[in-house]
Amino acid sequence: MDAKVNFNKGDLLSGEQAMQLAMDVALTGAPFVSPNPVVGCVVVDHHHRLLATGFHAKYGYDHAEIDALKKLSEAEIRDSIFYVTLEPCAHEGRTGSCAKKIATLPVHKVVYGIQDPNPLVNGQGVAILEKAGIITEEYQGPLKEDLFQLCEIFLKNFIQKKVFIAAKVATSLDGQIALRTGESKWITSPSSREFVHELRSHYDAILVGANTIVQDDPSLNIRHPKIQKSGKIIILDAENSIFEKECKIFKIHQKENILFAVRKSNPRNPYKQIEFTDLLQLTEKFWVEGLRSLFIEGGAHTYSSFLSAGLVDRIFVFMAPSIIGAKNGLAWTSHLGIDSLSKKIEFSQLKVKIIGSDLFMTARMSQS
Amino acid sequence: MDAKVNFNKGDLLSGEQAMQLAMDVALTGAPFVSPNPVVGCVVVDHHHRLLATGFHAKYGYDHAEIDALKKLSEAEIRDSIFYVTLEPCAHEGRTGSCAKKIATLPVHKVVYGIQDPNPLVNGQGVAILEKAGIITEEYQGPLKEDLFQLCEIFLKNFIQKKVFIAAKVATSLDGQIALRTGESKWITSPSSREFVHELRSHYDAILVGANTIVQDDPSLNIRHPKIQKSGKIIILDAENSIFEKECKIFKIHQKENILFAVRKSNPRNPYKQIEFTDLLQLTEKFWVEGLRSLFIEGGAHTYSSFLSAGLVDRIFVFMAPSIIGAKNGLAWTSHLGIDSLSKKIEFSQLKVKIIGSDLFMTARMSQS
Repeated sequence: MDAKVNFNKGDLLSGEQAMQLAMDVALTGAPFVSPNPVVGCVVVDHHHRLLATGFHAKYGYDHAEIDALKKLSEAEIRDSIFYVTLEPCAHEGRTGSCAKKIATLPVHKVVYGIQDPNPLVNGQGVAILEKAGIITEEYQGPLKEDLFQLCEIFLKNFIQKKVFIAAKVATSLDGQIALRTGESKWITSPSSREFVHELRSHYDAILVGANTIVQDDPSLNIRHPKIQKSGKIIILDAENSIFEKECKIFKIHQKENILFAVRKSNPRNPYKQIEFTDLLQLTEKFWVEGLRSLFIEGGAHTYSSFLSAGLVDRIFVFMAPSIIGAKNGLAWTSHLGIDSLSKKIEFSQLKVKIIGSDLFMTARMSQS
Repeated sequence: MDAKVNFNKGDLLSGEQAMQLAMDVALTGAPFVSPNPVVGCVVVDHHHRLLATGFHAKYGYDHAEIDALKKLSEAEIRDSIFYVTLEPCAHEGRTGSCAKKIATLPVHKVVYGIQDPNPLVNGQGVAILEKAGIITEEYQGPLKEDLFQLCEIFLKNFIQKKVFIAAKVATSLDGQIALRTGESKWITSPSSREFVHELRSHYDAILVGANTIVQDDPSLNIRHPKIQKSGKIIILDAENSIFEKECKIFKIHQKENILFAVRKSNPRNPYKQIEFTDLLQLTEKFWVEGLRSLFIEGGAHTYSSFLSAGLVDRIFVFMAPSIIGAKNGLAWTSHLGIDSLSKKIEFSQLKVKIIGSDLFMTARMSQS
């Protein structure tokens, strides 16, 4: 969440700084590691001076610890301290076990952010290290919530075997995303929009309602100076009615990256179609398709439906400091109605900052 | 806005810290100084070690500089540096001129936050000090915007001869303040509500619509461990229809502290009545009544009317991380409608923080 601080080799780091830096470098891999977790690693010497950083850059590539190790000399490894955002893996998967690798080295200590929920790892990475005489320590500090957030997609995937779903909303201060006349334009500032492209890249697929595709004609690609990625686009089109329309999205994205979620398939629709009767079932079908995370970008009907179904794990709200008025405005929750305040949808772990001229907040659904 | 830091006498302060501390102590006077400005003062020695603080505590009481001076020995005054949030006054009003008083003393330097807009002071306080050989410096740093905010009520009063108007809203994340069925309860957390009592105390009067008085039956007093104040209550009751209802407000507040804003006076209404045809005219009548600042606390119709009329200078929004849904919800801008997005109401100088479990934001209307 916070501004990244740049450190150089040799800089003295506190434990918090080392773990924060491990999280910062980890994010570089966020667009590419799925279905693996986002993981970062920072190695310091026994004086707590920075030696190297590493991160899991892409599915199938080196794990964070190995990436960091490759940057260290034998002399540097001796008595070094590793800060890793997630417990080093114990099992041999596509890549070797990180815990076993570290156990062969004269490392002094490993501080890990959270325990791996994978029953193949869960505490076993730690056991391997301790057996080799390496001190281990589970991080217990103010960054704990951020550490869980860093790999929340992986944690939900792994523990619940379900797709992680985030919704991103760009709204006025009074919850309006457009006028009911249909008038709609960028509500938030350019800095917010650049950040949206980064967030998009962290998810396997972007999901948008058919109305929004037709009315706003968005590109929904990832336009970011540092991230090259073409993710999947899911069009929620119950009526299966827009596949022949002239929309940017059909020109910009490769055909195999576009999926239609429909009530009933239509042989004339040239894109892959997934039939659904309700949203929970739809997300289960996405899981079977290999999708592990969704980023919902509107519109009002789509936000309302996913929220009503209790399917939104995290919300990202960009709020411009302007007021549109609910009288002629279109609220992002316009199709969501509760009959008692006791049924309001609660979020927690609120984080907030100013981006450009906008307010940005994110929170996690309380029960998710 | 930010958490106050406690300093002790002798602590070394940076220039920023001294000015921040001057603003922090100034706020203690905020409930009581109207129509004077909120002003704070910090005095440091030539090594920049804290000697004393002072503030304008109440209308008619000592100005901040004099309050600080009274805590200093003759030896301490020698070569001291004053940080004052507002240019020291040049004219003799209810109290003596601060600039003239300081000019008689062996003070080294005076750093002032902003120039006094009062043409009786405007640069003249500085001239008096400089003539006496005291170095003066207008603060130009990151706290400049906060310094203007600290005395924004006074600045608007003085420059425009108009009442300063703030609106405070407690809303869900999607802009709803209740259900349309009438169901309404605390949306935000206890910490937010305590802060509301502090904010209330900074304004001459609280203004609430008649519907809200009847439906929510609020107390609208200032319940804060450190602030004892009974401000005015204005009930916006165009129809002049609620003065005989059984409401807490009529029992809690003294009769002379309650004002009715009505289309037409009614001799049966035992409270003071102010007739109005439009809100701009109403605020002009408030000015004539001696009111210098209003704190609007709802409901939806009242917020919408004041915003439509362009009369809200500052907005305070407490947002709970929960979603109520616009379908059955009552939006705080439900009566506000624009016919083009180009007419949206813009705010700037956005500030944001987390209070308890809520998001708190404040901003200034862009053109005000």
